[in-house]
Amino acid sequence: MTLGQIGAIEGTTGCARLALTDADRDGRDLVLAWMRELGLEVSIDGIGNAIATMPGFDASLAPVMTGSHIDTVATGGRYDGNLGVLAGLEVIETAMAAIERGELQLERPLAVGWFTDEEGARFPPDMLGSLVYVGGMSLEEAHLIEDRDGETIGDELERIGYLGPAPLPGPAPHAFVELHIEQGPILEDAGITIGVVESVQGISWTEFTFVGRSCHAGTTPMRLRRDPGVVAARTSVFVRELAERFGGAQVATCGVVTQVPNLVNVVPSQVTIAVDLRNTDEETLQRAEAELATFVAETAAAEGVEVSSRSLARFEPVLFDPRVSSVIESVAIDHGHSTLRMPSGAGHDAQMFARICPTAMIFTPSVDGISHNVAEFTERSDIEAGSNVLLDTMLALSEATFS
Amino acid sequence: MTLGQIGAIEGTTGCARLALTDADRDGRDLVLAWMRELGLEVSIDGIGNAIATMPGFDASLAPVMTGSHIDTVATGGRYDGNLGVLAGLEVIETAMAAIERGELQLERPLAVGWFTDEEGARFPPDMLGSLVYVGGMSLEEAHLIEDRDGETIGDELERIGYLGPAPLPGPAPHAFVELHIEQGPILEDAGITIGVVESVQGISWTEFTFVGRSCHAGTTPMRLRRDPGVVAARTSVFVRELAERFGGAQVATCGVVTQVPNLVNVVPSQVTIAVDLRNTDEETLQRAEAELATFVAETAAAEGVEVSSRSLARFEPVLFDPRVSSVIESVAIDHGHSTLRMPSGAGHDAQMFARICPTAMIFTPSVDGISHNVAEFTERSDIEAGSNVLLDTMLALSEATFS
Repeated sequence: MTLGQIGAIEGTTGCARLALTDADRDGRDLVLAWMRELGLEVSIDGIGNAIATMPGFDASLAPVMTGSHIDTVATGGRYDGNLGVLAGLEVIETAMAAIERGELQLERPLAVGWFTDEEGARFPPDMLGSLVYVGGMSLEEAHLIEDRDGETIGDELERIGYLGPAPLPGPAPHAFVELHIEQGPILEDAGITIGVVESVQGISWTEFTFVGRSCHAGTTPMRLRRDPGVVAARTSVFVRELAERFGGAQVATCGVVTQVPNLVNVVPSQVTIAVDLRNTDEETLQRAEAELATFVAETAAAEGVEVSSRSLARFEPVLFDPRVSSVIESVAIDHGHSTLRMPSGAGHDAQMFARICPTAMIFTPSVDGISHNVAEFTERSDIEAGSNVLLDTMLALSEATFS
Repeated sequence: MTLGQIGAIEGTTGCARLALTDADRDGRDLVLAWMRELGLEVSIDGIGNAIATMPGFDASLAPVMTGSHIDTVATGGRYDGNLGVLAGLEVIETAMAAIERGELQLERPLAVGWFTDEEGARFPPDMLGSLVYVGGMSLEEAHLIEDRDGETIGDELERIGYLGPAPLPGPAPHAFVELHIEQGPILEDAGITIGVVESVQGISWTEFTFVGRSCHAGTTPMRLRRDPGVVAARTSVFVRELAERFGGAQVATCGVVTQVPNLVNVVPSQVTIAVDLRNTDEETLQRAEAELATFVAETAAAEGVEVSSRSLARFEPVLFDPRVSSVIESVAIDHGHSTLRMPSGAGHDAQMFARICPTAMIFTPSVDGISHNVAEFTERSDIEAGSNVLLDTMLALSEATFS
């Protein structure tokens, strides 16, 4: 709640801390102070990620890491990302206190990180900090990325004082586990407390532009029309029916429809739509893309409408490590919580760590499935449950051997 | 072409002379000067319509009237409306010269009018001047109509010097015939020179607003969605299929689709569409409206989407006088022109005069069916053909007796 005061959106419980703005710097300064108050060893790298590690362990021992992000979208909530970082701090504080009391011994240190620009709302792409951490993009390339006003990431990192010295790519953790709000309605709808996240859906975004012939809606007989709006509407219906036909994890959405000139009595000249297809299975996702492309080509040709398309985004599905998700699941059951194995429909920093170490995620329910919205909310009891599962999962992973 | 210089849109052959602007005033001044040069008796009424009548006839003899409008839409062409006024002037000049040469005697005078604000592009509704002329709206009500900046018709008429003294409603002509460009592709497509316009399609415009639940396109399973975009798309497809199923004169268009928030990865919260239905038969038009309303209600309910609707415009079909259209047809055939009996898909001043006297219209082809566009064009030979048919139709109507 204290972090949520920084960048607070007046009259709401929402937050605006776009990456590398003054508000993001103030949020970083606050969380960094908390990390230091706990006596953690903090390293800040060249993309502004901060990793805070329990002190007193052999430096050669890779930590069990958790973490997420503290940047938000322009009209975001208090939970997305922030929960994972602050719960990580709480877990480490709790474990350190138990060690101090002689009630706990750990094979490996625990660590918590925040990763820069997870939202991608100011600088594309999203999950940038964790992407650079795992070596998916060079630091040089990342520093040159510009926002809409032409400000670069490199300059902004320097300006806010978070251009750190720790080398990149960063060292691989022993394992990585991220606690995050679900940002969807599945857990709430099913009455489940803990989501055991086994995968991240692959994403395929395609923009189609249909160009027909604008004409008068009263004076042009139907047989002489080449109406791109009809092609767009048929495609939108096809997209819905494809998702229903494929079933399973398939989701499909036509979120963008822009009609020109958009007047009551004018058959449009041009309609642009964007289709969002997601599936946990790459092969199925490719089949969905192929069916969509065929439908669009045939439907546009039948109407005499020209069509062009471009990919706006394409990510393959990510499979998390089943050993890590099994640990999460048994810990949650031991705690007496209901659990559901599920994919993530959104992208998260954990999917980057899956490239370099055993990784999985814990989801807690989102009220009404709302996220990226000032009304974002997760019940206190669910946050407590998720944080305790994170604690015992990290402790168990500290003992685990992965080969 | 001279009138087209006033309000000319640079780099095009288009015109912008929105009703009662300075450009409209300059256009009026020019055409009024031409009317007076011909020695016509000009009366200007309280809504700014000008009627120019041949001199030398008994004032009790109702004239055979033609006319149209000289205002344009914001990005209009040179032909829409202007053709009917200037061809009328040419017809009267020609007839007067023939009378002077002793080659023609007329039972009744000919008259040509322009009617204020036919386009309705600045002040709603369209066909305002002719509506007030025939008594369909009181002058007091019309004077209070405001444009988007709050300027009233009454004040603007006074400002540009066209608040005339002639009383309203105006006197009924003996007959009325209007020459106009088709504004559609039917004549060009069929290779026909003269359209004999027997009716004006009835128009039904309905706006539907669909409200669902906005959610994340990745994290929300299909079964938990209430997507107004899907309802809108299904409705748009239904509208097209309805027109094909009804056939005949039925046209149906979904020209407006506005999706909120219109983002790739967000299921929309709200989608607004506008549906334009037109038919020459009132009963069929009502059946189309009823089928559409039923489909929308059922489709929205099935998706769990709320729907509200409002009528944006509703005009019953207008049937022209078959005696007048028969005169047009025989004159055109006598001139050796191909003819097609057809409805008008757009509204025209003539449909107002149909309330008070025998009326019909003559259409000439529009190249590529384009109108309300700077590219609007009609071939010189078609203008000549249409004007000659107008001349002989008016002469024939001057002899005709209607009972």
